[in-house]
Amino acid sequence: MSTLHIRPATRGDISAIVAMLADDPLGAQRESPDDLTPYHQAFDRLDEDKNQHLVVAERDGEIVGTLQLSVLHGLSRQGTTRTIIEAVRVSAATRGGGLGTQLITWAIEESRRQGASLVQLTSDATRGDAHRFYKRLGFVDSHVGFKLTL
Amino acid sequence: MSTLHIRPATRGDISAIVAMLADDPLGAQRESPDDLTPYHQAFDRLDEDKNQHLVVAERDGEIVGTLQLSVLHGLSRQGTTRTIIEAVRVSAATRGGGLGTQLITWAIEESRRQGASLVQLTSDATRGDAHRFYKRLGFVDSHVGFKLTL
Repeated sequence: MSTLHIRPATRGDISAIVAMLADDPLGAQRESPDDLTPYHQAFDRLDEDKNQHLVVAERDGEIVGTLQLSVLHGLSRQGTTRTIIEAVRVSAATRGGGLGTQLITWAIEESRRQGASLVQLTSDATRGDAHRFYKRLGFVDSHVGFKLTL
Repeated sequence: MSTLHIRPATRGDISAIVAMLADDPLGAQRESPDDLTPYHQAFDRLDEDKNQHLVVAERDGEIVGTLQLSVLHGLSRQGTTRTIIEAVRVSAATRGGGLGTQLITWAIEESRRQGASLVQLTSDATRGDAHRFYKRLGFVDSHVGFKLTL
């Protein structure tokens, strides 16, 4: 099996990332891979913030996965730093090959490096497979995730 | 009814904030109001990050509420900026007086000012009253919230 390299995303990775975001039952309805303008603007906002880590997983020169890790400092839990994992995607051709586990394991290790003692994420209630996946990795489904669209 | 003022927290507010974090069935087990050192250190980390907004609600010179609003840029959903609300607390004496609604309403308005089109939060599965409160404010409980303690 060839080596997987997880590294910070660059502007050149945007179209590959958006393709993965869109190639998903929920993402298909809310992404616009034919117009990358809003993604380029968002990338610039992200790139300025040292507490945001958008990464890609590369194998044999191909982008096969992505996630965003956000570092949140805060007062609660005795000043605990927590991280939030968002926008986890694995390319369709690579699913089932353990890449999701490698990505989340990287995020957990990076969280430790960032001084975090809590990692959190939310997953759409319809993603039953994802829930089982996160539980296998030790995550506890202790919370209800609320969203308000503005 | 006297005027409520929601403003950025300062170092001088830390003890009042920690008292509110600790005065809660879950918070009582995980906060250390007798030793503020970790909270001061966390405040400094927070204060450096322009995408973190720790605020207090003040009425008649007294701190009666707090929350933290985090602004997260990202690529998904066509480059949507989202905000995350964490660590919402209202002082025991003030509960039931609509202050929680005022705090969350402020957070929603501030999210709009920050260019966000999605506001999200997680609430412990045991906090049934909080869940009804967020639903009344228009939040949808569409997600499962996972946590991993490191």
